Amino acid sequence: MKSAYEALKKVVNRSGFGPECHVLIKKLVKASAEELSRCKRLHLVSKVAGKSYFAFERSKRRSRPVNAELFDARSTKALEMFQGILEGNRREFASVEITRSIYTVAMTCCAGRDVASDGDQKTPGTIFEWLCAAAVQAALNVTPKRSLSVLNLDLKGELPTDFVFDLGVEKPKFHLPVKTSTRERIIQVWAHQRVLDGVYGVGRFLAMPIILTETKLDAKKLEVVEICLPWQWRLYQMHIANLWNVCYLDAPAAYLELDAKFPRIGVATIGDVLKKGGRLDALLKLHSLL
Amino acid sequence: MKSAYEALKKVVNRSGFGPECHVLIKKLVKASAEELSRCKRLHLVSKVAGKSYFAFERSKRRSRPVNAELFDARSTKALEMFQGILEGNRREFASVEITRSIYTVAMTCCAGRDVASDGDQKTPGTIFEWLCAAAVQAALNVTPKRSLSVLNLDLKGELPTDFVFDLGVEKPKFHLPVKTSTRERIIQVWAHQRVLDGVYGVGRFLAMPIILTETKLDAKKLEVVEICLPWQWRLYQMHIANLWNVCYLDAPAAYLELDAKFPRIGVATIGDVLKKGGRLDALLKLHSLL
Repeated sequence: MKSAYEALKKVVNRSGFGPECHVLIKKLVKASAEELSRCKRLHLVSKVAGKSYFAFERSKRRSRPVNAELFDARSTKALEMFQGILEGNRREFASVEITRSIYTVAMTCCAGRDVASDGDQKTPGTIFEWLCAAAVQAALNVTPKRSLSVLNLDLKGELPTDFVFDLGVEKPKFHLPVKTSTRERIIQVWAHQRVLDGVYGVGRFLAMPIILTETKLDAKKLEVVEICLPWQWRLYQMHIANLWNVCYLDAPAAYLELDAKFPRIGVATIGDVLKKGGRLDALLKLHSLL
Repeated sequence: MKSAYEALKKVVNRSGFGPECHVLIKKLVKASAEELSRCKRLHLVSKVAGKSYFAFERSKRRSRPVNAELFDARSTKALEMFQGILEGNRREFASVEITRSIYTVAMTCCAGRDVASDGDQKTPGTIFEWLCAAAVQAALNVTPKRSLSVLNLDLKGELPTDFVFDLGVEKPKFHLPVKTSTRERIIQVWAHQRVLDGVYGVGRFLAMPIILTETKLDAKKLEVVEICLPWQWRLYQMHIANLWNVCYLDAPAAYLELDAKFPRIGVATIGDVLKKGGRLDALLKLHSLL
């Protein structure tokens, strides 16, 4: 798995998330699935209403919690569908299929790394970033940037950013922080959006964080909880900046509820964003890009 | 050291940072110094201009980098002075003495915990919070809160915060995030200030983060660097919110420079804030509190 990761890293650093990296993503997912095939499944006590979780386990190592409903054990099917998404065919799949496919592929890589290392947090986070960037690049047909230039009066420099997908002159620019989980760190996303609003003008950038899950495992009790701060989110949306859509793979109900409240924070599954006629298509249509 | 920590924790949770906790702080610092007395010092290669660093080492464990100039080996002297600060006598000491005293006491506890545990990051951070809260409580003569109530129109709830020192009706309220280091996470401080500005009105709260250091150790090369993002700080100060003063124990030159630039970000050592006629006194005077 490590060699598949290093090969993918090299290609991503050289040429981003185009077709050349798709082949290596496939290899990495397969190597990760191979790691997991040698694990047994450990049932976890879910304290999250309506969801059940398990962990992969091998010798003394245990993976992060895996959502049993979203994780498609027939991982070749999920992988095939993900390859379809990467080839630009997202509109062929139903919302729930898209979410399950990306969740399965991402969780295969993250859990695979969990059981193959001692507490490496960075690699799973990086792989998840790449997978999401590749999927969004396929959906928007532009390559992302990781910094923006700032130039006004005597102020001049580069602002490092999360992924930025720029659809062109007078067209939307998307700002995509990608995180395996956020908790109280989510405030950074609002703050970055505020800086973009301030430097480039309000409404110029549309923030769409993509987040894997908000689960937390109590290692002793084997209990899974979701850490959610919906009340803080509303204050951030009112007082810091406006996020366009917060996009989840394993979406917490407490956040999905915000999608229907006032003041509204758009929260959706990645399937609802990427499906045919979904949130992304609605926006593209609004800007005559569809 | 762990028992001294637990005893202090109990008192802090019950009654905050008053005289009762001062005795236990003294015990914790002595227990930590005891841990360090059994260590040898490892010279580190400083890549930070004008500063030299070492680490405490025992068997296979190594502490975070310690600033050789700020760390006062005759730790009883530093501890006595710190006790004097806790008793409200900060104005008796010169700026550099205050900084060195608090740095030595804090670093004794943090490095002491580093060599007594395997990668426990949380306890040193918590102890550092307590030490700073106790020092500021002694300076302001009010006990801090950790949450604020929000109440306007149909919005009602509690907002969790860092330490808040409220000097009373129509008097300054200080917001004090306390961090052992910040790097890119510092944007959270600006974002929280923005929420306070939005909810309670601009200028109502004065943000004064207290930060131990921005050093980072390369474990292989034994090199110490400082991770500073002065360009990002300026964008945050211009586009997110205004921080009153950023207060350092081991202050990076790159940030101290911002204190003299336009647009200005107040950056100072903790000694320059707490000394007689220092930044805190200037503010108290402005509000007829001195």
